[in-house]
Amino acid sequence: MSTSPSRPSAYHHGDLRAGLVAAGLAILDETGDPGILSLREAARRAGVSAMAPYRHFADKDALLAAIATVGFEKLREALLAADRAAGEPPARHEEALIGQGVAYVAFACAQPALFRLMFATRISVRPDTLVAASLASYAVMVERVATIVPPEAVQERALQCWATAHGIAALSIDGQFDEASGSPTELAERLLRLCGTPFERAAGPT
Amino acid sequence: MSTSPSRPSAYHHGDLRAGLVAAGLAILDETGDPGILSLREAARRAGVSAMAPYRHFADKDALLAAIATVGFEKLREALLAADRAAGEPPARHEEALIGQGVAYVAFACAQPALFRLMFATRISVRPDTLVAASLASYAVMVERVATIVPPEAVQERALQCWATAHGIAALSIDGQFDEASGSPTELAERLLRLCGTPFERAAGPT
Repeated sequence: MSTSPSRPSAYHHGDLRAGLVAAGLAILDETGDPGILSLREAARRAGVSAMAPYRHFADKDALLAAIATVGFEKLREALLAADRAAGEPPARHEEALIGQGVAYVAFACAQPALFRLMFATRISVRPDTLVAASLASYAVMVERVATIVPPEAVQERALQCWATAHGIAALSIDGQFDEASGSPTELAERLLRLCGTPFERAAGPT
Repeated sequence: MSTSPSRPSAYHHGDLRAGLVAAGLAILDETGDPGILSLREAARRAGVSAMAPYRHFADKDALLAAIATVGFEKLREALLAADRAAGEPPARHEEALIGQGVAYVAFACAQPALFRLMFATRISVRPDTLVAASLASYAVMVERVATIVPPEAVQERALQCWATAHGIAALSIDGQFDEASGSPTELAERLLRLCGTPFERAAGPT
């Protein structure tokens, strides 16, 4: 068209931002190191000038925050999918919760660099959208817990399940479990199941 | 003495190694970043030449591994001290286990950079001494669990308690809990207690 800019761009308004986030995700996935990621390299991958990212991101931290936000959105989708896969209530409430824990660990193991970034303190800029995406993913777990225990116990039990799943995820991607523990997702399935069961007691005088 | 070397050193044989590890711990504590730590800077702090560390450490990773090893030794001491503080068995077995979980989280929060290093994959050299120190600290938790549940349940319950404590520790030092959750050690005390208790059930038809 005659009104097109003299310098053509492959991006419509708004798409460049998503393109840069996608490029950042790919770099993170390949290198495993948020330290290597730069606005310049994201721009190169996205096929735009080195200055173009500054239309959307003030600095590298802003891009990292946007990537982490997308990470939490993906995590939320994974938790919801696992929850749905457990079938219909009421019989399957606890299986749905266990499934979420397994999905949480599987997510971390499939993209450890993204998982680390999502929880990293290196994101010095924590925009509201990142905080909101983080809370929205946690809410999926809270809502399932609320179908299992009474209201006054929900907060503590949700924190317990989150801490358990996060601990397994962190220790797994750091290579801290030996083979005898089984795969990370098998371990998550077993340990999440233990969250709600009393300590086994040795046979003895009652 | 007439037999002293022409170039005097403040270190006896073996002490230099410990001095460099101590210098590395101090640098880590101050900067919070293992990336900044170097053999050269550790040597400068220890008051020896830039080449002196190479008598004991092949490279920076070897120094990091030695620091992580000391970290696990300190963690083991903290777990043992907390376990002892819970008093005498048999009444206090579970309190001792909860105390260990609290000590684990307190350790991480008091020295987050060291805690991260201990579990970091960046230690490309994992000497046997590091692996042994790691296992020895975990053994303290396993031994306490073994006083609570029958033998066949020990491994799983110990993994559960470890994952819970590690999850709280990791999320705490990454600033992921809001103030409503209480302090990290308060949270550890409450969530470790939940590890062995069944889900609360809403009142309803039985």
